[in-house]
Amino acid sequence: MHYGARAVAALVSVLALAAAPVRAEEGFWTFDNFPTARMQTQLGWAPDQAWLDRVMAGAARLPGCSGANVSSDGLVLTNHHCVIACVGNISSAQANYVRDGFMARTRAEERRCPGYAIQVLERMSNVTDAINAATLNIPAEGFARARDAEIARLEGQCSNGAHRCEVVTLYQGGRYALYEYKRYDDVRMVFAPEHQIAAFGGDPDNYNFPRYSLDFAFLRLYQDGQPAQTPTHLSMRFTPLEANEIVLLAGNPGTTARLRTTAELAFTRDVQLPWGLLNLSEARGRLIAYSAQGPEQERVASSAFQGVENLIKRGWGQRGALTDAASFARAVAAEEDLRTRINRNRASARETGDPWGEIARAQAAYRPFFLRHQLLEAAAAPRSSLFAWARDIVRAADERAKPDGERLPRYTDARIATAERFVLGNQPVSADFETLNLEMWLSKVREYLTVDDAATRAILGRESPQMLAARLAQSRLADPAVRAQLWQGGAAAVAVSDDPMIVFVRSWDGQARAVRERFVREVEGPVAQAHERLARARFRAFGESAYPDATGTPRLSYGRMQGWTQPDGTEVPPFTRISGLYERATGAAPFALTQRWIDARARLDANTIYNAVSSTESVGGSSGSPLLDREGRVVGAGFDGNIHATAGTFFYDGALNRTVSVTATAIRASLLNVYDMPRLVAELEGR
Amino acid sequence: MHYGARAVAALVSVLALAAAPVRAEEGFWTFDNFPTARMQTQLGWAPDQAWLDRVMAGAARLPGCSGANVSSDGLVLTNHHCVIACVGNISSAQANYVRDGFMARTRAEERRCPGYAIQVLERMSNVTDAINAATLNIPAEGFARARDAEIARLEGQCSNGAHRCEVVTLYQGGRYALYEYKRYDDVRMVFAPEHQIAAFGGDPDNYNFPRYSLDFAFLRLYQDGQPAQTPTHLSMRFTPLEANEIVLLAGNPGTTARLRTTAELAFTRDVQLPWGLLNLSEARGRLIAYSAQGPEQERVASSAFQGVENLIKRGWGQRGALTDAASFARAVAAEEDLRTRINRNRASARETGDPWGEIARAQAAYRPFFLRHQLLEAAAAPRSSLFAWARDIVRAADERAKPDGERLPRYTDARIATAERFVLGNQPVSADFETLNLEMWLSKVREYLTVDDAATRAILGRESPQMLAARLAQSRLADPAVRAQLWQGGAAAVAVSDDPMIVFVRSWDGQARAVRERFVREVEGPVAQAHERLARARFRAFGESAYPDATGTPRLSYGRMQGWTQPDGTEVPPFTRISGLYERATGAAPFALTQRWIDARARLDANTIYNAVSSTESVGGSSGSPLLDREGRVVGAGFDGNIHATAGTFFYDGALNRTVSVTATAIRASLLNVYDMPRLVAELEGR
Repeated sequence: MHYGARAVAALVSVLALAAAPVRAEEGFWTFDNFPTARMQTQLGWAPDQAWLDRVMAGAARLPGCSGANVSSDGLVLTNHHCVIACVGNISSAQANYVRDGFMARTRAEERRCPGYAIQVLERMSNVTDAINAATLNIPAEGFARARDAEIARLEGQCSNGAHRCEVVTLYQGGRYALYEYKRYDDVRMVFAPEHQIAAFGGDPDNYNFPRYSLDFAFLRLYQDGQPAQTPTHLSMRFTPLEANEIVLLAGNPGTTARLRTTAELAFTRDVQLPWGLLNLSEARGRLIAYSAQGPEQERVASSAFQGVENLIKRGWGQRGALTDAASFARAVAAEEDLRTRINRNRASARETGDPWGEIARAQAAYRPFFLRHQLLEAAAAPRSSLFAWARDIVRAADERAKPDGERLPRYTDARIATAERFVLGNQPVSADFETLNLEMWLSKVREYLTVDDAATRAILGRESPQMLAARLAQSRLADPAVRAQLWQGGAAAVAVSDDPMIVFVRSWDGQARAVRERFVREVEGPVAQAHERLARARFRAFGESAYPDATGTPRLSYGRMQGWTQPDGTEVPPFTRISGLYERATGAAPFALTQRWIDARARLDANTIYNAVSSTESVGGSSGSPLLDREGRVVGAGFDGNIHATAGTFFYDGALNRTVSVTATAIRASLLNVYDMPRLVAELEGR
Repeated sequence: MHYGARAVAALVSVLALAAAPVRAEEGFWTFDNFPTARMQTQLGWAPDQAWLDRVMAGAARLPGCSGANVSSDGLVLTNHHCVIACVGNISSAQANYVRDGFMARTRAEERRCPGYAIQVLERMSNVTDAINAATLNIPAEGFARARDAEIARLEGQCSNGAHRCEVVTLYQGGRYALYEYKRYDDVRMVFAPEHQIAAFGGDPDNYNFPRYSLDFAFLRLYQDGQPAQTPTHLSMRFTPLEANEIVLLAGNPGTTARLRTTAELAFTRDVQLPWGLLNLSEARGRLIAYSAQGPEQERVASSAFQGVENLIKRGWGQRGALTDAASFARAVAAEEDLRTRINRNRASARETGDPWGEIARAQAAYRPFFLRHQLLEAAAAPRSSLFAWARDIVRAADERAKPDGERLPRYTDARIATAERFVLGNQPVSADFETLNLEMWLSKVREYLTVDDAATRAILGRESPQMLAARLAQSRLADPAVRAQLWQGGAAAVAVSDDPMIVFVRSWDGQARAVRERFVREVEGPVAQAHERLARARFRAFGESAYPDATGTPRLSYGRMQGWTQPDGTEVPPFTRISGLYERATGAAPFALTQRWIDARARLDANTIYNAVSSTESVGGSSGSPLLDREGRVVGAGFDGNIHATAGTFFYDGALNRTVSVTATAIRASLLNVYDMPRLVAELEGR
């Protein structure tokens, strides 16, 4: 029922090759449940098991992003915007790699990304029965805790060193799977182009096409101080893409909400999205002004700023999708249809109960404390590293004293390494950038909880947001050695610390934990339990041939290289070429070329395909996904969706939804003719 | 049907004095249709005709605000935030009256507010028949033009010098009234406290209570260079307010949408409000950073900044109201009830047709070009004076060549004086503040219309928003003499001008006018015509005892001095006192006292009532409204609503909705004991 009926008609004309009945190439499929027969029927070709196994082993999971291992010496292709934080972190006031690009001419010049890790999926197994047994007969308010305790147990007994295990909740709780990864903790920067070329077109062109962004970068996996040996890598193909050729996209799409109930969609539409857009927009205004102060400020803020602008554009598109009455009505109709099917079978109806009502009531319960939960807990102090470190240090010290199953999920034995890597990593901080972010958050606490609220009083005391932020930004946690001492010193060290940020976090953590606990009890647990029953009912009604919502874990989508027709009738072709880059360049940011590109013009083939769109699915988290041809060769790196793809979190429309990639041909041409990196091209070509 | 049923139950317990059946004191009533009998029944007292006539003559209409004439020499009481733009305009880098306050110790020191005018309502008459005759049998797409031509005719034959006539559309078109005002073009600043005291509590306390803002100021009307003689002024009362005493509020509430259809409310909820909040929040972030650059920037931006923050807080509250499922369901039910009543009578059903459907279709037609209409026309270049002047100059030159009835409404003979006063007024501009505002708008044009759009290309050419904004900000229109020369020179002068802003506005005005014309034809006309029929049907169903939506024209609301009970059970008392101001002061903005206030503490009676809440209705535009006792004496100046009043644009809840006023007792105490202005107090006391 989630297969967009609208899309079908539009695709019929495009996909002349496809056998009837044509259906949209919808879905983020797990590698162990890929719809081979469906794809074969639709596109006349589908990958076999060997193909799937090979691609799974060659795909990479980056923090919030995707990538592909593309050489036997551990080279990883991803997007520039996925690693811009690292490019900033290894820069300094003297060496601005965000502005100038980073090019390791030898392996010795490759630079470690602080606190960065990459994972490669090795195994998946079904642990639904274990979770179900552990949560049997647990009331809704205790459900999330019982589930999390069992997850901690399963992950703990499986994880071991670089072998990391993670329980993934699929189908909103219809299935739990244990994913086993090999983790690489030593990841180094190999190549990143200049930010202004990687992000050419900037925010104005973001989510738009035609597009001209050289949004790629290379990292390298290291093991024991040496480049990792990675025989299971994928190969790149440097021959041009062809219109309509079949492609697949392998990545880690972050979050979709297609199995969410309409009550949840309405909550997102009415509360979460408006709140997010309001805050992000103010942050955007502050960051624009901050970045305009000078190149150093621009460099410090660039990663956060790009992230904020991206979220705004996506959020605005999501708002458009959720407030589209026809789209929402289809979601309501699908929900009604499922309910009708379930109620036809009395046993199923009894087992299922009223999950829609339970979820709606949980959303209603959340509404009056949503802002408090966001401001004090779920989104406290956005973009402040000092606050995040301090909270991890304070909480880890408390949590480690508890049995594994009773800890907050972030601090269980199986997961605490992620927090530790974050706290001990070598990311630099800028005191005035910290002040900016802390001040904005503190002013929102006061604005939305009001001056007379107990939490506001606990947080601000008699200080203004400006004064308090400036004081906290002087925290000694900026020094990694201080963080290490506190992390290792545990509760005793935290208790005696007089660091202003540690004292601050400690002083009101009880209030933050209380609102978190209320959320787990009144919202998270009831919603998760209801969704489990709903997922089982959906399996009974429709079988198991559907795909689960995206969860930031490895998935595969499929489609063709093809443009689309805009709602106003304009045809958008699938490829842009290097010639178009030079035509679009105005000389002013974000449409300015770097000197390297101005100088290289004569050396480049103007006809080289530069960016390209495909009908594969992608959402936030898919960035850096290898675009693969039928032979499993990497032909590009997805870095964006088109404007219609912003709706993809909730709805899919195959006639409009497109992934935007930077092509392998553009990557090769730039490495050879702009950046003079023949060493890298030779490695990519297996020479 | 718009009388909130919820409110009734809550009020019964509060209003022990009121006779049964108690109903909420809802409504913004016109002076010629005040519900005397209803108020008498509810509160046991109501004003007589003499009272109404006296208050109408003493009330004042300020641009976007309200006020009261409170001395026989033309003194006008309003809010500080209503005149902060003037305080800024008469300031300079040497004399910062925003920061330091403005105190004319003699009449000679009173300073004229550039481009400012105040109106006093003298007469109202019904012109519905004339408008109806002029629009009879006009199709929907031509309706707005035909109506506007007749309005221009009616206003033109009535207006004469300082006697200004304006047709007001009441009941969304159910009635048209001709309002005749006496206009004062020479308005001078007499007294304004320091901004930090007027806006004490700033944005955090805005729309909140308890409250401690000294938000008042005094202006004076001048005529022929002398203080105007105003025998019809109101008196002030300086004895303390009493809890539960009956009060009325006379002002010019700006806009309510209580008679709008649910399709219009949904459009506001889903499109207009999200767009407004998104833009205002980014502007807020930019303005915060701009103001932080120094006291001069803070002064230049203060009026715009305060306005932006106020709109955000109100918009967030409006979003909360419109996304409240229960409130919206009540609006839907009321609409259904009206439709049922209309359909009971076959003749009425035939005459009425389907206005709801017509309006819904017009909203749907608007959606695809809403952003274009906002960015190019309705909200082009917000906060840029240079752009606004240039557009007025360019358009007035074109429009004056046309017959009166064919002009854009702003440039008809009866109305053009407003544009002229704006263009020729002496407001200073700051080039870098202009650049800030123009750049933001230009970047939104590019962002939302996209780089490849024809209008974006016409506006930006190959320039970046930054470059173009900086160039336009150098416009010579900053000089009033240059503006006067172009205004008087008309089309010939405009055609040969090489001023960058004139050239810019001229170059794409055709595209702006085209989208305006499309809006008038496809949205404004059809909606207005449908609303006329709906209003007539409503009169037939419910009689004429209702109040019209607020339209920025003189109205009266009534209630009592009383606090309220918060949804969480907290009781909020109706008064704050001077002692509380000193307790709340932290020393840090926006909770810092000025030195004058610190020094005056011992001279002030700590028990003096400072701010107060009443159950009268108020919305944006009501600011500065005189709060009146039963004798028609001014006991305060309304300056805000409480947080629940932000919903008042759409819904009314008498149990929660409150007006916040600065009291006459606080005004007198501050004038005598803080600002040493005995001359002014003597004038207010008629001595």
